[in-house]
Amino acid sequence: MTTQREVHLIERPEGLPSEDHFSIVETEVGDPAEGEILIKNTWMSVDPAMRPRLSNNQQPLNAPMWAGAIGEVVASRHPDFKEGDSVQHQQGFRELLLSDGEGINVLDPGDLPATLYLHVLGGTGLTAYGGLLVTGELKDGERVFVSAAAGAVGSVAVQIARIRDCYTIGSAGSNTKCDWLKNELGLDAVINYREGSLRKNLKEAAPDGIDVYFDNVGGEHLDAALPRMNPLGRIPICGMISAYNTPGARSAGVTTLSNMIYNRITMKGFVVYEFNEMREQFLSDMIGWIKDGRMQYRETILDGIDNAPKALIGLFTGENIGKMLVKLA
Amino acid sequence: MTTQREVHLIERPEGLPSEDHFSIVETEVGDPAEGEILIKNTWMSVDPAMRPRLSNNQQPLNAPMWAGAIGEVVASRHPDFKEGDSVQHQQGFRELLLSDGEGINVLDPGDLPATLYLHVLGGTGLTAYGGLLVTGELKDGERVFVSAAAGAVGSVAVQIARIRDCYTIGSAGSNTKCDWLKNELGLDAVINYREGSLRKNLKEAAPDGIDVYFDNVGGEHLDAALPRMNPLGRIPICGMISAYNTPGARSAGVTTLSNMIYNRITMKGFVVYEFNEMREQFLSDMIGWIKDGRMQYRETILDGIDNAPKALIGLFTGENIGKMLVKLA
Repeated sequence: MTTQREVHLIERPEGLPSEDHFSIVETEVGDPAEGEILIKNTWMSVDPAMRPRLSNNQQPLNAPMWAGAIGEVVASRHPDFKEGDSVQHQQGFRELLLSDGEGINVLDPGDLPATLYLHVLGGTGLTAYGGLLVTGELKDGERVFVSAAAGAVGSVAVQIARIRDCYTIGSAGSNTKCDWLKNELGLDAVINYREGSLRKNLKEAAPDGIDVYFDNVGGEHLDAALPRMNPLGRIPICGMISAYNTPGARSAGVTTLSNMIYNRITMKGFVVYEFNEMREQFLSDMIGWIKDGRMQYRETILDGIDNAPKALIGLFTGENIGKMLVKLA
Repeated sequence: MTTQREVHLIERPEGLPSEDHFSIVETEVGDPAEGEILIKNTWMSVDPAMRPRLSNNQQPLNAPMWAGAIGEVVASRHPDFKEGDSVQHQQGFRELLLSDGEGINVLDPGDLPATLYLHVLGGTGLTAYGGLLVTGELKDGERVFVSAAAGAVGSVAVQIARIRDCYTIGSAGSNTKCDWLKNELGLDAVINYREGSLRKNLKEAAPDGIDVYFDNVGGEHLDAALPRMNPLGRIPICGMISAYNTPGARSAGVTTLSNMIYNRITMKGFVVYEFNEMREQFLSDMIGWIKDGRMQYRETILDGIDNAPKALIGLFTGENIGKMLVKLA
């Protein structure tokens, strides 16, 4: 038996979660029986999509939090896994995982860092790729606006837009983030949404309007974007982080939806599993772009499982640039 | 020369228009020159889509209001028209029209009343037909909600939904309208949105959710409908009458848009001209349904051009059941 720690949700938050909603619990994990493996997690993924599950019962109380993770097989009595295998799974937010192999994938990161499979090369990247190219039906040279553009999904979306020769506008919540977007990722225009009028700043940043608004935020951002949309514009709705910490998942009221009518705008919610069948093309494109320097990434890393609740809460207060990760010893 | 009267917009309304924004102007109309016809209008169409044009400069000031109309050719020196022809055009809100024939269509209503070409068999009906079947991608047997269901477009939409064997819910602003929808048009559920909580009443009326919400209203109606949408539901946005009389075309804030994400909802604005190429199929279907009794209609008729501004304003205070028309002597 080995002692390990895991993060439990112990109370459902109504608004912004606090550390009081979580507990770090010590448990004993036995050795693998026949057909089982023991995984030592090395990296855990922290994602805005975890927030709605805290309130809507998809995340059980008093059980380890669901989250993406990568780890190493430290003991195996399963024919498909051997000691030392690098693996990826969705049962994160714990140090050790005893598993029958269900939902555990062996990871071969090649010459790239394994953590990329938790963001640019994982669900985060596929969300940006599918949301922009499939749901958003992006065409070369269009005008694109991405909110929360310095976040994990947003920063991939803006770079795909740039690769497709689009005039690309991004919003973010600090000057440091805006500098990264403008100076390193090469965006055409950036907006610090915490300074001045978002509506006015977006109007100035989009003199030729917006063809695709990739929405991660909802609320005030969507309200400002709708009057700027060009005819036949598309709004893929990836997330509405502004609504996640409001009871009933209600965002700030969007008052400008009537702009959709005469301009024949389409707004469409999507979920990453829609794009599963294009994963091979996605990986091929993304690995190429990473290697030729056109796809950059940042990681914001917190150390140790004790910091996992703080990492999750930090997503909603803007603590991360790029992907928020928790590193385990 | 003949004296006739026409309705001018003399001031752009910010909120609900009043009769002070319009003027009834007397003008002199000459006899047709070679290549011209003189039309005496008999019926004028009054439509919610006229409202946004009053504010956005599409309707010029101090000129006859744009509106659908039908009339009779009373004098012709044009080879394509003869005296006595019934014609339809978009230059309504006047008693007489001298024209070179541009945009004037000869109407052959057969054994049906000519006024039907101003609503169920005109743009109004095509809006409901295309919006529901094309934009809304309606499938037989789905669950449908239509707001402003006793209006000109809404009452066609709910009947098409019933013809397609859909469980059909309609909202309207009076018990008289709800009675018509329930008892004569055969809706499965009706909601008087002026009584009680729309949100709660819609939840009760839609125990199996909503697959298609045909939105004529926006604002509070859309806010209530979004949490009821089934996975892969569609929301064709036909109009947002709740926003038309608010400066900047802002509706009451919609706070529930994040429901679009996990249920992968599509919301899409549309305009009737998209459906022009299906007009023949539309007319064939609709005439069949009218003749076999499955497509009913009502007209709310005001008499004389003096009443035209009142008729238009009445659309926004709910004075009409079915199509609002102005009858000329």
